[in-house]
Amino acid sequence: MRQLNLDLDEKSYPIYIGQDLLSNSELLTKHIAGKQVMIVTNTTVAPLYLDKVKALLEGYKISEVILPDGEQYKTLDTVNTIFSALLEVRFDRSCTLIALGGGVVGDMTGFAAASYQRGVNFIQIPTTLLSQVDSSVGGKTGVNHELGKNMIGAFYQPKCVVIDMDTLDTLDDRQYSAGMAEVIKYGLLGNIEFLEFLENNIDGLMARDKLLMIEAVYQSCLDKANIVAQDELEAGKRALLNLGHTFGHAIENILGYGVYLHGEAIAVGMLMAARLSQSEGFLSADDINRVRGLLENANLPSTIYGKITPSDFMKSMSVDKKVIDGNIRLVLLRKLGDAFICNNYQDILLDQVIGEFCLTT
Amino acid sequence: MRQLNLDLDEKSYPIYIGQDLLSNSELLTKHIAGKQVMIVTNTTVAPLYLDKVKALLEGYKISEVILPDGEQYKTLDTVNTIFSALLEVRFDRSCTLIALGGGVVGDMTGFAAASYQRGVNFIQIPTTLLSQVDSSVGGKTGVNHELGKNMIGAFYQPKCVVIDMDTLDTLDDRQYSAGMAEVIKYGLLGNIEFLEFLENNIDGLMARDKLLMIEAVYQSCLDKANIVAQDELEAGKRALLNLGHTFGHAIENILGYGVYLHGEAIAVGMLMAARLSQSEGFLSADDINRVRGLLENANLPSTIYGKITPSDFMKSMSVDKKVIDGNIRLVLLRKLGDAFICNNYQDILLDQVIGEFCLTT
Repeated sequence: MRQLNLDLDEKSYPIYIGQDLLSNSELLTKHIAGKQVMIVTNTTVAPLYLDKVKALLEGYKISEVILPDGEQYKTLDTVNTIFSALLEVRFDRSCTLIALGGGVVGDMTGFAAASYQRGVNFIQIPTTLLSQVDSSVGGKTGVNHELGKNMIGAFYQPKCVVIDMDTLDTLDDRQYSAGMAEVIKYGLLGNIEFLEFLENNIDGLMARDKLLMIEAVYQSCLDKANIVAQDELEAGKRALLNLGHTFGHAIENILGYGVYLHGEAIAVGMLMAARLSQSEGFLSADDINRVRGLLENANLPSTIYGKITPSDFMKSMSVDKKVIDGNIRLVLLRKLGDAFICNNYQDILLDQVIGEFCLTT
Repeated sequence: MRQLNLDLDEKSYPIYIGQDLLSNSELLTKHIAGKQVMIVTNTTVAPLYLDKVKALLEGYKISEVILPDGEQYKTLDTVNTIFSALLEVRFDRSCTLIALGGGVVGDMTGFAAASYQRGVNFIQIPTTLLSQVDSSVGGKTGVNHELGKNMIGAFYQPKCVVIDMDTLDTLDDRQYSAGMAEVIKYGLLGNIEFLEFLENNIDGLMARDKLLMIEAVYQSCLDKANIVAQDELEAGKRALLNLGHTFGHAIENILGYGVYLHGEAIAVGMLMAARLSQSEGFLSADDINRVRGLLENANLPSTIYGKITPSDFMKSMSVDKKVIDGNIRLVLLRKLGDAFICNNYQDILLDQVIGEFCLTT
């Protein structure tokens, strides 16, 4: 088992990464203060791992909520069903919530934990590659609103994150690829050595070689933890983690959640950011080919499949959270492995890139 | 104008108390960072003060949400209407929310500010006595759930609190008395000199003498600010502020919000806490008469009007937030002006007090 820590003073917490961790009771119980534990999971993950996690919690008062599976259920209404479940069993401020599932379960459980009785403890057990390398680490929690993605939420840190690589055995190929998009992101935005590691080992990673996967997840979490430790509330550097996300959210928003998986939309979004970086003179055509090649080797899309007009795309981008006083901030690449936040790109170049990708429908 | 500060390191903020403050533009604008301002108010307060506040904000992009008035609307659904309004005008993370109204408006606006885009700035302009001395100070925000009061929320501090005593001119007598219950609470729980001041000046206070009111509000806010500064997240001492609240919430919960005003229910709850303190040997019969007398002079109820059975009362108390691992913690009085948190009261004495008050129906 490998371990790293997210360093946030009194809110610091460990991230455990390894195989067969869901047989290790102590990893969980040493982070549970009271006796009441609510496991929040979904209809897909419950049959696979719920009993396994419950077996680790002998002596606790265990309750569970099984949510429907899918980004379309990441709403305030669904979070309210978690509140109802907690109140029905009369759980108090000493209770602990465990998020068992992918990013949607983690985001909602975290927000429920942040808001139930103004804050109770929670633990993340992410079971998808995407949530293991991204949403389970760093304390961003929340839900979607019909007018925008992740518009409602809280910064709220878990007590620990338990990443059992064995849970990826049950992940389908498309979900696995979607997770790989966020892994690739860490290479692109700040770690050229890691990008090269991914390029050199993409076949083994796609074949789900466990040692390579552990290395990739560990490095992704380490990079994210370092950035979050410097900027928990996204006042600055943390925004780099949004590479590809402003574009990607627009794709998800317009086509509707579920047409593209989040990681797939982000893959296209990263390529769009790279293309704009090229137009601005930062990246070469070779760089673009490397990005496109790696995404394609990870079986990720590099074009938009679906009808989107450039004007709809722009409109959707302008309600993203990265907008400050009306100005859309974008994460661009100065070179591969070196991202920066850009406010002064040329609008016409952005229009061109959007036009190019919207034309591929 | 009097000013005091709630000292919470980088989250510290000023509380302004005085007359005619809603003519002072700078009090607000120096605490607004961006250009987007959303005023949240309700149908009762909007006709009285909305234009006045808007007039202070020349040069800003102002939007407004006018909520229905009443505790029964303090729900997640209503908060969602604030999110919708913010998204419809595309307000971003630089926006500021202003809560203009009583405790319900303040609690919901604060929770909306805590959760919109994971946290934006907000300002409290409390227009009822209750919210001026209680809910607007200290950062407790949230909404009710059908299974319990204030069960969903966040600790989230405003950038400033502007308490204009002139807004109390439009407050009806019943609401004014309800606010006085929380003022009396500060005397009872930790400040015997203030309790005596209230006893000596209750007639002038009930006649709304402005100088006496400013003194009472200032002292209440000061006492609260001192307690919150020591214990923002209610790990210890802050729980003393719940004097009467576990009892009072049970009354509100069973009879339904709106039958008793919050302050009225807390008045009865404080008397119940005092009676239990007497049964436990802490207070004398004279002490009880002083508490009852002061509440009655403030035109507050000292009995439960409405059908409540003792078993319903106990059941309702046991879902309050002050329950830890199944044990109901109560705030009792060691003497007048000296409250403490009690876990080891005798259950039979609690039953007797509940029986006594439920019999008065």
